[in-house]
Amino acid sequence: MAKPTPLSGFPELLPAQRYVEQQVVATLARTFELHGFANIETRAVEPLDQLLRKGDTSKEVYVLRRLQEDDSSKDKGIGLHFDLTVPFARFVLENAGKLEFPFRRYQIQKVWRGERPQEGRFREFTQADIDIVGRDTLPFHHDVEVARVMLEALGRLDFLPGFRLQVNNRKLIQGFYAGLGLDPDGIDEVMRLVDKLDKLPVEKVRDMLLAEAGVSEDQADKALALATIKATDDSFVQRVRDLGVSHELLDEGLDELATLVRSCAPLATERTRIEADLSIARGLDYYTGTVFETRLDGYESLGSICSGGRYDALASDGRTTYPGVGISLGLSRLLVTLIQRGVLTADRSVPSVVLVAVTDEESRADADAIATALRARAIPCEVAPTAAKFGKQIRHAERRGIPYVWFRQDDGTSEVKDIRSGNQVAADPATWEPPNEDLRPQVVTTIDEGESK
Amino acid sequence: MAKPTPLSGFPELLPAQRYVEQQVVATLARTFELHGFANIETRAVEPLDQLLRKGDTSKEVYVLRRLQEDDSSKDKGIGLHFDLTVPFARFVLENAGKLEFPFRRYQIQKVWRGERPQEGRFREFTQADIDIVGRDTLPFHHDVEVARVMLEALGRLDFLPGFRLQVNNRKLIQGFYAGLGLDPDGIDEVMRLVDKLDKLPVEKVRDMLLAEAGVSEDQADKALALATIKATDDSFVQRVRDLGVSHELLDEGLDELATLVRSCAPLATERTRIEADLSIARGLDYYTGTVFETRLDGYESLGSICSGGRYDALASDGRTTYPGVGISLGLSRLLVTLIQRGVLTADRSVPSVVLVAVTDEESRADADAIATALRARAIPCEVAPTAAKFGKQIRHAERRGIPYVWFRQDDGTSEVKDIRSGNQVAADPATWEPPNEDLRPQVVTTIDEGESK
Repeated sequence: MAKPTPLSGFPELLPAQRYVEQQVVATLARTFELHGFANIETRAVEPLDQLLRKGDTSKEVYVLRRLQEDDSSKDKGIGLHFDLTVPFARFVLENAGKLEFPFRRYQIQKVWRGERPQEGRFREFTQADIDIVGRDTLPFHHDVEVARVMLEALGRLDFLPGFRLQVNNRKLIQGFYAGLGLDPDGIDEVMRLVDKLDKLPVEKVRDMLLAEAGVSEDQADKALALATIKATDDSFVQRVRDLGVSHELLDEGLDELATLVRSCAPLATERTRIEADLSIARGLDYYTGTVFETRLDGYESLGSICSGGRYDALASDGRTTYPGVGISLGLSRLLVTLIQRGVLTADRSVPSVVLVAVTDEESRADADAIATALRARAIPCEVAPTAAKFGKQIRHAERRGIPYVWFRQDDGTSEVKDIRSGNQVAADPATWEPPNEDLRPQVVTTIDEGESK
Repeated sequence: MAKPTPLSGFPELLPAQRYVEQQVVATLARTFELHGFANIETRAVEPLDQLLRKGDTSKEVYVLRRLQEDDSSKDKGIGLHFDLTVPFARFVLENAGKLEFPFRRYQIQKVWRGERPQEGRFREFTQADIDIVGRDTLPFHHDVEVARVMLEALGRLDFLPGFRLQVNNRKLIQGFYAGLGLDPDGIDEVMRLVDKLDKLPVEKVRDMLLAEAGVSEDQADKALALATIKATDDSFVQRVRDLGVSHELLDEGLDELATLVRSCAPLATERTRIEADLSIARGLDYYTGTVFETRLDGYESLGSICSGGRYDALASDGRTTYPGVGISLGLSRLLVTLIQRGVLTADRSVPSVVLVAVTDEESRADADAIATALRARAIPCEVAPTAAKFGKQIRHAERRGIPYVWFRQDDGTSEVKDIRSGNQVAADPATWEPPNEDLRPQVVTTIDEGESK
């Protein structure tokens, strides 16, 4: 077999890089569990008719077929899931009788989309989602809760760049447009056009509002003014009021968003900021209140790395409706990009903190016994694969980043060498311990000359 | 959307069940890391020509196609991997220049096979593999090592039934048959037929050996005699010698297997047994020395739950050959069966150990502050979703298996109630700690009336 080449859009990590991803997953899981979120995994496949309910994503779905399947197969079509929301909604309906509501779950899994690969966009990638789902009703304070939990989780990833959680509320936008006198179709059209502000100059969007949405100059100017409002506190409320529009739904949205910003503000730090950004709408049509997006400092070109919101009908079986609020972190978009640019890695490629040297093959059992004693006290280690010259065994450790090499003397005593300093001391496998910072690989960061500020 | 129904062969777990799986994965990972195995994940897909190299499995492969792809697409065909060995071999070749050999890795991922589902056999399932791969050479002591590591890992899963690791050596079998005077084709044919002993009566296999493999009665009887030999120590060596067959490869196989059994014997307990079983051959043709299978006590009908062996050419790029030895645990085969039969679950469906009660919505922030104080000391908790009557809030905790409910009094002090005993005591969120056994959900086992002894 000739040397294989990577498949575009299907990133893979080397062991030291994968260690970074493992640490991130463990930190996220720990934070979500501290807040009472239970983990689930759903199968990778869903019936095609479920996956294609939203026409928008149909082009991205990978369809599965068994190799020996003939076309007349009675199997219903199945495809790989393209997010974790569609399978979660199905899981809730399928298991509603066995779940307790409100149901809080986190889910960290791979998803697949047949998109054209580009930086930060892959065909196979990992998402980390939290959602809270109620039966019939779900209090608004859960919107605050998912935002706070994700802020805390991202905040704990202190080797990542800082970020900005941007929040808005669809009731606010829709109420504002309704207060401007737009009908539902007009609201959708204006929302769609204003959403282009991140790609097109404001003058161009204004022209489109006038020509395509058929709104008046005053309506266009107010819609654009609303979208320019940003604030890290609830001062945005007065700025919206100053635009002179009133509507019941607008009031509700302003109240909710002000509550969200005030409740999250205490969690903000220099690295983890929260901002009401009234231009955020999220294209997907099922959000009905709070919406979230997140920008990574210095990597704004990646787009949002963490998005979500409130949906009044996450799932429905016709009789019962399940409202939900959730937020989804694009783990691969965030990590693979930083790892591929060399910004993030680990300081060793193996978990071992010690390599136990082997004097000769006859004494391998003695080396094994030392390793067993170390492992009994939770110290990861490995025994040298061959009884090569000690210099070669030390280089074996060095190439993997293993900081200590253990030597057993003929008299049964031991010495351990820190191969970084060359310092070698007597040691007993029943009591010796490495410094805590050596026990596990450490995530190391380097400055990205390319894009960071 | 009507209530969805499960897809046969794609098992999913409820939160308390998934917790059991999470604990097993964490225990396996911790054990593998203590022995210096680094984690990797490979992409879910491989080029079809790689997946179909072994004709045997072609019928099981799921082929992928983008929904909008036309038949003339220039994309090479890809399919979902059906094990973790094919992708690992490809990963080693692709990254050989960036890896240090011997390379030790563990990999815990889902795989897919379009097989007809039956108990213990799924279309989507999780495997946990460890392998050690060398460049050009790989010392035999690594065969011993992977067996010991997997024995230790399975031994730590003390809520599982006991198991028996069965070991054999292909050199022993092939050398024995060669010593009987069989040529390579004859060896393969006899091995194929003797492998049927677990399904067919010995007389039937003997008839087939005579008729289909064309061996003499003496050759057939000796081949069958070899396959009946089992031992938990190295006494099998003499029993093989007593059959009066000699061959250089047989000697090598006997030596290796005796070393393996002697080295693993000290790890054996009543729950974790090791046995040389000279009937074990493993159907797959790439094993060249040590072979492993594992039976779960009381669940022998599941077949082997953990299998593997030595392959002198795990991968080769024509210039360099990479020998390997590994063992693969069928996590879903093991767990999903026990979980679906109700033998294994967890004692609560959420990570929370405390539910903080809410007196009224106005004081929700006080309840949040208590939860924050508990989480700061790594105590998972959640705040009641509504300010319902306390009896209802207690039932909310009860239904999830949350053992403690926290009440804040009007004067700012707190009490915490163990809702199992009804015991309620004063508590300070800055210092209170639950007993260690309550901090995390516990895996609970019930006797399986169906199959266990």
